[in-house]
Amino acid sequence: MQRGYFFSAEGGEGAGKSSIVSRLSEYLDSRGLEIITSREPGGIAIAEQIRSVILDKENTEMDGRTEALLYAAARRQHYVEKIVPTLNEGKSIICDRFIDSSLAYQGHARGLGIDKVLSINEFAIEDVFPDLTIYLDIDPEVGLRRINENADREINRLDLESLAFHRKVREGYLELVRRFPARIVKINANQKMDEVFEDVKQVFDRFLVSMGKLS
Amino acid sequence: MQRGYFFSAEGGEGAGKSSIVSRLSEYLDSRGLEIITSREPGGIAIAEQIRSVILDKENTEMDGRTEALLYAAARRQHYVEKIVPTLNEGKSIICDRFIDSSLAYQGHARGLGIDKVLSINEFAIEDVFPDLTIYLDIDPEVGLRRINENADREINRLDLESLAFHRKVREGYLELVRRFPARIVKINANQKMDEVFEDVKQVFDRFLVSMGKLS
Repeated sequence: MQRGYFFSAEGGEGAGKSSIVSRLSEYLDSRGLEIITSREPGGIAIAEQIRSVILDKENTEMDGRTEALLYAAARRQHYVEKIVPTLNEGKSIICDRFIDSSLAYQGHARGLGIDKVLSINEFAIEDVFPDLTIYLDIDPEVGLRRINENADREINRLDLESLAFHRKVREGYLELVRRFPARIVKINANQKMDEVFEDVKQVFDRFLVSMGKLS
Repeated sequence: MQRGYFFSAEGGEGAGKSSIVSRLSEYLDSRGLEIITSREPGGIAIAEQIRSVILDKENTEMDGRTEALLYAAARRQHYVEKIVPTLNEGKSIICDRFIDSSLAYQGHARGLGIDKVLSINEFAIEDVFPDLTIYLDIDPEVGLRRINENADREINRLDLESLAFHRKVREGYLELVRRFPARIVKINANQKMDEVFEDVKQVFDRFLVSMGKLS
């Protein structure tokens, strides 16, 4: 049986990842891929426990390197229990945030260094990167404005960080686009969602053509 | 103010670490060092939370790499909140288990590789290794027999592993003694505790002389 494809979607707060991932999943299904979506910790009990330590608002003393190691640990467990078995069953998976989130947030924006955070994450994923990553690039002010208009969404510790921080996150993502040009495709997410999604579809159509899945 | 000294004590199950650390602490105090003892997670709330995830008997699905990342995360937080401030106050600290435990247990015995586990732990401790580490080397059968005779001590998940595993742990420690000959001193812990302690005292006397603290 052929191994499935591994995709990830990245972007700052308010870039519209959840909505795009959901539409992309339907689209790839219509193109004949058996596809599931996930996001860390993804209902994996151990990863959920780890994430609750990270997001606990009481843990104000948490060091940046501790946080990066915890994200890598939760990633590892989700990877082993969910991503690998899915791919091995021949299904494809879209992960809403993956390694690049750690590289942009902890590595660049928190100043730990992209290379250092990359090294602990390569340990976590045994150097198996997504086949294709879309980065939804949005102006941080636009993104944060979108978030604050959305009352259904619970505000977490990261949302409380300043706009300056989100600008650094964007810088980090742009650096990753430069470093991994074959894997990461940047999408302009300042557009209307329908336009963003048109761009995303084109990227995946090209990918499927290159894999011989679409002519 | 002069920075304190950072010591660690290592060894397999039943090697007598707690007892030796306690006696060593009194001894170094009598030699004029202001000294505290600790062990991870050491009452550091975040590190305690992380350790409870690791030691939770329900977490049978935990992957070896997840475990190694969690140990590194707990180590980081204990290091930042307890070890660094203690050393900066000019006090010395003896840590009951530190980085070498991860290298011997996860790196060697669980087969993740000493170099790989070293790399995530170097991230955790920013390459600041103990000034001196004693490795209490005991025959695993002797060590496990000692543990099972001690009814006061709660049996945890690691204790349930097989003797074969503990033999591998010992192999790992012996490899570390070869790799880090300037930092790690091997002590024969198969002897009576008083004899073990005499050897430990000699090692620390030599260290204090070399530091100009004892003539």
